[in-house]
Amino acid sequence: MKIAQFYDFTDKNIYYGILKGEKIYKIEGDVFCNFIEINDFVTLDRIKILPVTLPSKIICVGLNYKDHADEVKMRLPEEPIIFLKPNSSIVGQNDYIVMPNQSKRIEYEAELAVIIKKEGKNVPLEEAKNYILGYTCANDITARDLQKKDGQWTRAKSFDTFCPLGPFIETEVDPTNLEIKLFLNKELKQHSNTEYMIFGIYYLISFISSIMTLFPGDVILTGTPPGVGQIKKGDEVIVSIEGIGELKNFIK
Amino acid sequence: MKIAQFYDFTDKNIYYGILKGEKIYKIEGDVFCNFIEINDFVTLDRIKILPVTLPSKIICVGLNYKDHADEVKMRLPEEPIIFLKPNSSIVGQNDYIVMPNQSKRIEYEAELAVIIKKEGKNVPLEEAKNYILGYTCANDITARDLQKKDGQWTRAKSFDTFCPLGPFIETEVDPTNLEIKLFLNKELKQHSNTEYMIFGIYYLISFISSIMTLFPGDVILTGTPPGVGQIKKGDEVIVSIEGIGELKNFIK
Repeated sequence: MKIAQFYDFTDKNIYYGILKGEKIYKIEGDVFCNFIEINDFVTLDRIKILPVTLPSKIICVGLNYKDHADEVKMRLPEEPIIFLKPNSSIVGQNDYIVMPNQSKRIEYEAELAVIIKKEGKNVPLEEAKNYILGYTCANDITARDLQKKDGQWTRAKSFDTFCPLGPFIETEVDPTNLEIKLFLNKELKQHSNTEYMIFGIYYLISFISSIMTLFPGDVILTGTPPGVGQIKKGDEVIVSIEGIGELKNFIK
Repeated sequence: MKIAQFYDFTDKNIYYGILKGEKIYKIEGDVFCNFIEINDFVTLDRIKILPVTLPSKIICVGLNYKDHADEVKMRLPEEPIIFLKPNSSIVGQNDYIVMPNQSKRIEYEAELAVIIKKEGKNVPLEEAKNYILGYTCANDITARDLQKKDGQWTRAKSFDTFCPLGPFIETEVDPTNLEIKLFLNKELKQHSNTEYMIFGIYYLISFISSIMTLFPGDVILTGTPPGVGQIKKGDEVIVSIEGIGELKNFIK
């Protein structure tokens, strides 16, 4: 099932709905808890897809692909290195990524994003799956020069528009073996598979929830594979994840 | 004026109110926008003081006191180093700070906190004052060993209960010359003045809002003065800021 949050041009309201072909069926209830699909649909040309969630927090994992670690000749980390992005950095499908004046080098990072379903603290590994609503695409946009300058990664990764997320939450996919790709102006730049993650998704949920309570709608970005590179004004960037969808954004 | 958020034991609701002596007068309206005080008060013994805000984000500034920089023999930073704490780390007056098993060394850091009043992006220095609702006390609790191990500071500073905040938002104080102290089990451990900040509060608002949009209720922690040190189970820790108040927490 593919869940979308969208703005309906006709009645000017925001809804969650279920994507079926070119239609989205509205739901009643709480998308994180109990909801039913109702017999009221809109077509994609009558709506704007919104970011899938406004989370209380976005937790990101640093170096988490074996092939990326090999590429940059870094030792595999013993534990996940985590950082946060502010929710003010979120944009959705087809939205602009705005280049800030403060940086001379902005880069893309394709990532699989996990959307949390319910509140959890100290979640055991074997129960982690129950805390997941689904998966979507994310682009962990990074001002690489500021990341190096500051040491701390927060400024480099926190500019407005630096967290494209979407377009849909896929609830039924197996996250352990998915092709993940990034296309810059239609050219393939990143290509790996989630099977190369160093720390798997269930482990990440257990690890992160041993630090901080997770809430419904919270987002975990699970790291990027090899091939990160620069984006410039006028570029189009697409994160494509098998079974989930394509997240397209433009740079200005 | 001192603004509090509190839980009323009598009617089991949450309110904002204005502290006057031992009474809190409830308000009607939006504490960040327009509100009026109404003739309905509660006494402090009938309520629990809650954290002053549930922000969309908490932005923190690293090394920001000249005397602290001297103490640790570090060069003054050219620009603020920022990081984020998740809002899941917030606790309020008299609440427990819970020691996580993952760390062997937890430390206090007394800080002046700024509460944002209205949405702002690229706020000019000379207008920054208008974006402030007021000030409160904060304790930027840090797992020092994990901070050193990870390099990134996020895990060390993001555990649940690691952001005591409160007890009141003081709206009328001049933040540029305030005594700031920390008492561990009644003993003075940190003592400085906000005049020794490297980057002043208005500059920080301008700097941070050039990166990310600030929203009403967002919190900026402005750095800690010299004298940070370890806390252990059973300790009592008080952050005291002149003209603002005392934030007391217990360790377990």
